[in-house]
Amino acid sequence: MNRADAAEQIVADLRELAALTSDEGGAQRLSWTPVWQQATEWFRRHMEAAGAEVSMDAVGNIWAKFAGESEASVVVGSHIDSVPDGGWLDGALGVAAGMGYGAYCLDGKKPKKTLYVVGWVDEEGMAFGKSCFGSAVASGSMTAQSAASLTTKDGESFADVLRTCGLDGERIDEARAAFAARQVQAYLELHIEQAPLLAQNKTSAACVYGVCGCHREYITFTGQQSHCGSPVALRRDAFLAAAEATVDFNKIALKYGAYCTVGQVDVAPNVVTISPGRCRISLDIRCIDKETFQTMIDEARAAYEGRAREHGVAAAHDVLWHKEPVLFDETLKELCRRAVQEETGRDAVMYSAPLHDAVEMVKAAPSIMMFVMSDPGISHCKEEDTPEPALKEGIRAFLRLIEAVLGR
Amino acid sequence: MNRADAAEQIVADLRELAALTSDEGGAQRLSWTPVWQQATEWFRRHMEAAGAEVSMDAVGNIWAKFAGESEASVVVGSHIDSVPDGGWLDGALGVAAGMGYGAYCLDGKKPKKTLYVVGWVDEEGMAFGKSCFGSAVASGSMTAQSAASLTTKDGESFADVLRTCGLDGERIDEARAAFAARQVQAYLELHIEQAPLLAQNKTSAACVYGVCGCHREYITFTGQQSHCGSPVALRRDAFLAAAEATVDFNKIALKYGAYCTVGQVDVAPNVVTISPGRCRISLDIRCIDKETFQTMIDEARAAYEGRAREHGVAAAHDVLWHKEPVLFDETLKELCRRAVQEETGRDAVMYSAPLHDAVEMVKAAPSIMMFVMSDPGISHCKEEDTPEPALKEGIRAFLRLIEAVLGR
Repeated sequence: MNRADAAEQIVADLRELAALTSDEGGAQRLSWTPVWQQATEWFRRHMEAAGAEVSMDAVGNIWAKFAGESEASVVVGSHIDSVPDGGWLDGALGVAAGMGYGAYCLDGKKPKKTLYVVGWVDEEGMAFGKSCFGSAVASGSMTAQSAASLTTKDGESFADVLRTCGLDGERIDEARAAFAARQVQAYLELHIEQAPLLAQNKTSAACVYGVCGCHREYITFTGQQSHCGSPVALRRDAFLAAAEATVDFNKIALKYGAYCTVGQVDVAPNVVTISPGRCRISLDIRCIDKETFQTMIDEARAAYEGRAREHGVAAAHDVLWHKEPVLFDETLKELCRRAVQEETGRDAVMYSAPLHDAVEMVKAAPSIMMFVMSDPGISHCKEEDTPEPALKEGIRAFLRLIEAVLGR
Repeated sequence: MNRADAAEQIVADLRELAALTSDEGGAQRLSWTPVWQQATEWFRRHMEAAGAEVSMDAVGNIWAKFAGESEASVVVGSHIDSVPDGGWLDGALGVAAGMGYGAYCLDGKKPKKTLYVVGWVDEEGMAFGKSCFGSAVASGSMTAQSAASLTTKDGESFADVLRTCGLDGERIDEARAAFAARQVQAYLELHIEQAPLLAQNKTSAACVYGVCGCHREYITFTGQQSHCGSPVALRRDAFLAAAEATVDFNKIALKYGAYCTVGQVDVAPNVVTISPGRCRISLDIRCIDKETFQTMIDEARAAYEGRAREHGVAAAHDVLWHKEPVLFDETLKELCRRAVQEETGRDAVMYSAPLHDAVEMVKAAPSIMMFVMSDPGISHCKEEDTPEPALKEGIRAFLRLIEAVLGR
């Protein structure tokens, strides 16, 4: 089948998966739930029909193998799970594109290298608050020891959650070993952009050369609560210090063309008539450039410490997460740019601010990502979408990339 | 008894009340509770022993009458209730000072005018969220109709709450009528400052010439929630708009030497990785000057509307409360200044930012307040205090004022 027909068929497959695993609120493929199991069975059915050997590893990553002339392999995929009320393309697109290459483009012929298609489990981190769970197991970042202590918000253990799907969490090391045995030479992931930049540039697809570093911390401001009739100049208002710091963070993000987000805000006592004695905010900083990333973290810290000091408020931070920026493989980047250019006529290169499974795969194999336009540029909601012409063009570009890396 | 000895005795009475109605957390005289009933019985015991005629009105305000040569009367008092974990002087000071004048200063002689001492119920508004409840019943602001629909946080009705204390809420109009029948010619209230200004000026007492207007509203910012990897310049971040507005409000307060407080902050979805789509803050504005007060409200509104617009966020407000500034009676003000000056050697005049029962009494009779230093200048907590020398000096000044208004 040619790439254009394959892309048509892949979009039809995505619509089939959406119909099977969504309700009126959106996609509901939360990992290790019955709806997620329906998605993995849909994967199995399609891939077995295409002649692939299908297996689920110890934690729930679902794999299809199309044997090549060599055991050396290329892994193509993305995550098959979704957030609650998620979109139809987030994750599913990359899985369906890999499946479609195997089912529609190989035409039953053996490629030079072996093709694995993967549907990662719990990229969204919904169960245990750990993003990229399945790919982190494969890369070795998530160990048996770390996993053993995980619990859901409701206090259910990792082992118990996996048991509901017939999986044995104690065999987590086998999943890593199985991945290591696959002699992976490249990891390719297609994903929707989840932001409006490509749509604004009327570009259907782009090579993604890296993923931003991400630094996340809680900042707690502790002042003195006081009556709202107390003299303003004498107050030690914890929320006012936090508000000023938030304004500073935004200026830092704009100055460096990068990202600062205050997403969580909790003030105490949170009463109309009392100026807050305590305020905790979360700060998420993202940047693609390693040095700028550190500068932003330093400037943000200086900003909130300064604002706190001006108000006689104490400030303390608690780092939740710190990942350095990741740059993808140079050779794959060139192949990816070329695939985009050949299909779309544009040399589009960008980085990703959101995290993806490919960041875990970088630890295990040369990796690259391609983005397809999002329009509207929002995600994690049922309104997430991509116009079909752009979607199909992006898929065709990605099929070109797989072909180039896998070898005819 | 001379004023110095009376002041000593009044402080001893206050300590007795505190011992009777506090636990390790502070004062617990919540209106219409058993501890509040103990406080009103303590009032009754002391006042009957001093020869006064004691009565509780239909809603729970407790009254002592020292008959004068004339039926025309002066009411002296404050609120006898407290917040949970409250201080020993907030409210109680003004009640005990009035009681003490009747018990220790009259020496059994009839004053020219009749003296009423009052302990208002639920000034703190703890039961139904209505500040100055008891004095508002007396002034006529709180009607039978309004009261009938009140419920506690737990859904208990006004009538049921009063019934637990043997009071008949349906007879609320009788409380107003009883007050109206008293031919009140002046209302005098002594209260602690609840702020550190007098302590900073090393001044024990001041004449309070008015109480700030108070405007309170919720402001809801509605933008678009988005992933923390979405381009900052394209976001419609509801919290960022609210934070910028909060910084503006503080500048407005400082510019006019008045008060702006953002005490309550709720963001949605309140998740570390999502820039907030919705944020609701409370804004409390206070100012003693009527025109400036309105200017501040207008400037605050322009500020948050402007900030919202800059971020493509919608802003809507919901007024919770609006009271114009209140200026007390000019004649009583001069008498109060003189009393302070004669006792302390200083001509100290100030206004109050917090609300007091005297604001209700202004509607019914010429009124005036006197403040006694707070040190530390905090309130609504057990740490609230006033050094004894300043406390006694303030009480002595207030006894002078009662004497001047009541007539020997």
